[in-house]
Amino acid sequence: MKYCCECGKGVVFKIPADDNRERFICEHCDTIHYQNPRVVVGCLPVYQGKILLCLRAIEPRKGYWTLPAGFMENGESTEEGARRETLEEACASVSEPQLYTVFDLPRISQVYMFYRGNLVDGKYGVGAETLESGLYSPEDIPWQRLAFPVVGQTLRFYIEDSQRGEYPVRNEVISYPWGKRPGKG
Amino acid sequence: MKYCCECGKGVVFKIPADDNRERFICEHCDTIHYQNPRVVVGCLPVYQGKILLCLRAIEPRKGYWTLPAGFMENGESTEEGARRETLEEACASVSEPQLYTVFDLPRISQVYMFYRGNLVDGKYGVGAETLESGLYSPEDIPWQRLAFPVVGQTLRFYIEDSQRGEYPVRNEVISYPWGKRPGKG
Repeated sequence: MKYCCECGKGVVFKIPADDNRERFICEHCDTIHYQNPRVVVGCLPVYQGKILLCLRAIEPRKGYWTLPAGFMENGESTEEGARRETLEEACASVSEPQLYTVFDLPRISQVYMFYRGNLVDGKYGVGAETLESGLYSPEDIPWQRLAFPVVGQTLRFYIEDSQRGEYPVRNEVISYPWGKRPGKG
Repeated sequence: MKYCCECGKGVVFKIPADDNRERFICEHCDTIHYQNPRVVVGCLPVYQGKILLCLRAIEPRKGYWTLPAGFMENGESTEEGARRETLEEACASVSEPQLYTVFDLPRISQVYMFYRGNLVDGKYGVGAETLESGLYSPEDIPWQRLAFPVVGQTLRFYIEDSQRGEYPVRNEVISYPWGKRPGKG
């Protein structure tokens, strides 16, 4: 941020009065420009024990498998966002979605939330940001070709929890950045 | 938003190519300015069956009781944010915080997350944004003077769940706006 989006004058980066961290401030119109984490919402669509995965057509991680997910939009709920992303990326609907995983990614200022749901009629397709979609049995998941740590972790939780048939909300901090997973440098 | 924060030129509000909703766009430097929901994080601090509440010293809802909470900052986890707000507003620490409630407030583009935790040593104070703090038994909660619907709902969930001693993560959409609660016009 270089300019004030309210008045167009240059901003400075300093600690405002009555605050304790640096913000972008406009000393012309006195606007403080707060910057906050973003929420990514998605689904874990399940059909007859198989999980719907999408091959990413766009960066980051083009050519890697993911669960349908994307940035939450203003004016929607997390569940609505998760359903919207699933429709956009996989042309798929889920029924009875339940909040399932909540991940903090403080290094990149994101919060990820996945809803677990039933893939309606087992139907899915290929959205604009997707190269290919498919239903995967737990034993066939392409673990080495998953796009993001939150995807692998959600799948691991699901496989573990489906043994018992109980799916408590899982909450975890992922403190390593994208592309630098443990053991991969 | 009137000006591009990257180049200082005026922005337009229209649907970008490959998108399906209006955004603020700079046609000078081609930046798309996405706007996304913000996350509010807080704690439900409990000590010997009593709950720590704070009387707000600032608007909105100055003079009403709340659980310590505030906007999540970049670079922190939801739990870190919840702990920080509890320290700032109530000079208090919680041990073993567990994610407890997740509320969607689509009308104001916010997601609220409260962590349930033990108030360390029963100690608390009065932060800069607080007029007064206190530990309240369930029967003494000032229901008519609570600041926000998410606070009352978190307290109701806690009182219900504490009967059984089980605290599953609760997830709910609050679709009415601040100040317009059911039955209050």
